[in-house]
Amino acid sequence: MKLPSLSDISSAHERIKPLIHRTPVLSSKLLNKHFRCELYFKCENFQKVGAFKFRGATNAVMLLSSEEKAGGVVTHSSGNHAAALALAAMMNGVKARIVMPENAPVVKKNAVEGYGADITFCKPTLQAREEATRTIMEATGATLVHPYDNYNVICGQGTAAFELLEENHDLEVIIAPVGGGGLMSGTSICVKGINDKIQVIGAEPLNANDAYVSFNTGILTPSVNPSTVADGLLTSLSDLTFSIIRKNVDRIYTAKEKSIIECMIMVWERMKIIIEPSSATVLAIIKENPDDFRDKKIGLIISGGNVDFRNLPF
Amino acid sequence: MKLPSLSDISSAHERIKPLIHRTPVLSSKLLNKHFRCELYFKCENFQKVGAFKFRGATNAVMLLSSEEKAGGVVTHSSGNHAAALALAAMMNGVKARIVMPENAPVVKKNAVEGYGADITFCKPTLQAREEATRTIMEATGATLVHPYDNYNVICGQGTAAFELLEENHDLEVIIAPVGGGGLMSGTSICVKGINDKIQVIGAEPLNANDAYVSFNTGILTPSVNPSTVADGLLTSLSDLTFSIIRKNVDRIYTAKEKSIIECMIMVWERMKIIIEPSSATVLAIIKENPDDFRDKKIGLIISGGNVDFRNLPF
Repeated sequence: MKLPSLSDISSAHERIKPLIHRTPVLSSKLLNKHFRCELYFKCENFQKVGAFKFRGATNAVMLLSSEEKAGGVVTHSSGNHAAALALAAMMNGVKARIVMPENAPVVKKNAVEGYGADITFCKPTLQAREEATRTIMEATGATLVHPYDNYNVICGQGTAAFELLEENHDLEVIIAPVGGGGLMSGTSICVKGINDKIQVIGAEPLNANDAYVSFNTGILTPSVNPSTVADGLLTSLSDLTFSIIRKNVDRIYTAKEKSIIECMIMVWERMKIIIEPSSATVLAIIKENPDDFRDKKIGLIISGGNVDFRNLPF
Repeated sequence: MKLPSLSDISSAHERIKPLIHRTPVLSSKLLNKHFRCELYFKCENFQKVGAFKFRGATNAVMLLSSEEKAGGVVTHSSGNHAAALALAAMMNGVKARIVMPENAPVVKKNAVEGYGADITFCKPTLQAREEATRTIMEATGATLVHPYDNYNVICGQGTAAFELLEENHDLEVIIAPVGGGGLMSGTSICVKGINDKIQVIGAEPLNANDAYVSFNTGILTPSVNPSTVADGLLTSLSDLTFSIIRKNVDRIYTAKEKSIIECMIMVWERMKIIIEPSSATVLAIIKENPDDFRDKKIGLIISGGNVDFRNLPF
């Protein structure tokens, strides 16, 4: 299996730079004091569509051949990747088709439609989604852009850490959340490629701890019906992301639901920025393991800021 | 009655600059498209203590004489001004005493105590507050720093608009929220002093519309038991702020509770920043009067970002 390299990520960065936002790196004296370490927040909540997913989707769309572009792209997702692929496709003049479960929230449907994508609804099961996707691929010749099990998507996701390290050379630790592992894969390749002394850590909800289990047993072990407030981290690693993570990540920590929610509210209150629950896991593992992070310079990949305020988990 | 001038505000800015945050001016293509005008958000939600109040309190504390500093400062407030005065005093080595109603939220008490101030609790009536304040002044020689009926506080509040216009020369309209009128007074003096062609507009909740009524009748008319989600705007104008606003403000608009809440959530969702309900009034008047603002370049003073997430108004 060919794994992406740092040079793939730096090429991806050059490629997508004109289309993405250069998101800010923020810090908070209050939170540094509270957690007794130095925190640097790479704020992908301010990225287009409100999440890092736009980086990977843009890289994947830009790397399609002319024929592939003509056939359009397809994915199945009800989350940030759907909106990201729809916008990336629109900005590159490519048709996007999104398979969504029929019970997806109206806001998410509206966002995807707003970016000009066609939606196909299906029953809310993985099998139904995959079938609908396959049918579209056969009928239209569309190329599948998987949310994380995709080489070019992973390279795009790694560009957030690339920018973070451009601005902050002397970080000792970098923490990213782990869902399907696309962000964690891109981040870990980038960081270890630039400086292998920097510790690379994954943060995962205890209630969806497939990466933790797989990493520590060495056997890819998907979660079964996980349930967590961190709705972006329900997915499980693929062969590709597991291979990358085993090779490049130093450790995976899990966080309890209560810590995730508390840390999310703390960032809202103290920093006055909206981060989504998935993003709060990176802070929650510091809260639960303070001695491991004391006095360190830590970069946190804040994955997104898409929160349903009409349906808050507290 | 001597009214502050632009040069008072620019002096205040020089004075407080080393102690305050230079807050960013943000914009959002999505919101510009939605409201069909060009919006520039001066983000005092990122100011120290999470509100513009820190500017005025700092200016007032720094302008005390040595004897006054030795006697300390006092104010009655359960809101942003209490925390602002406590921090401004602490940073200048001055003792702060804050009179708070006994039913003030625990978070607010903790914030004020965290900044080293002494709290005196009283019954939750204006009379009880004023009495307690007077008793402290007599017993300790402390100087009252009123939240808005204070020349130096008003000059400090005007520095937010000063910075906004430094960065954005070509604004056509500037909107600030109106409560007691300190921010509106400082803003209007600053803007008209720099360029009297810029329209200066006040935004007030319909449910606490004393400034709207006073401005349009020419008679200072305090609100009676106002009730609004914009908890920073419950107070009424003083003689001083009314005089300034009559002279310098072009128009005051009111906003309904529903618009205020909708606009607050819209900013959270689209811009991924936390603004408090009082701040959302500036956007709510645009939402309710779109034709008056169409295609204009508009500066919005976002007053603060202190929201109680355990007690949301929706």
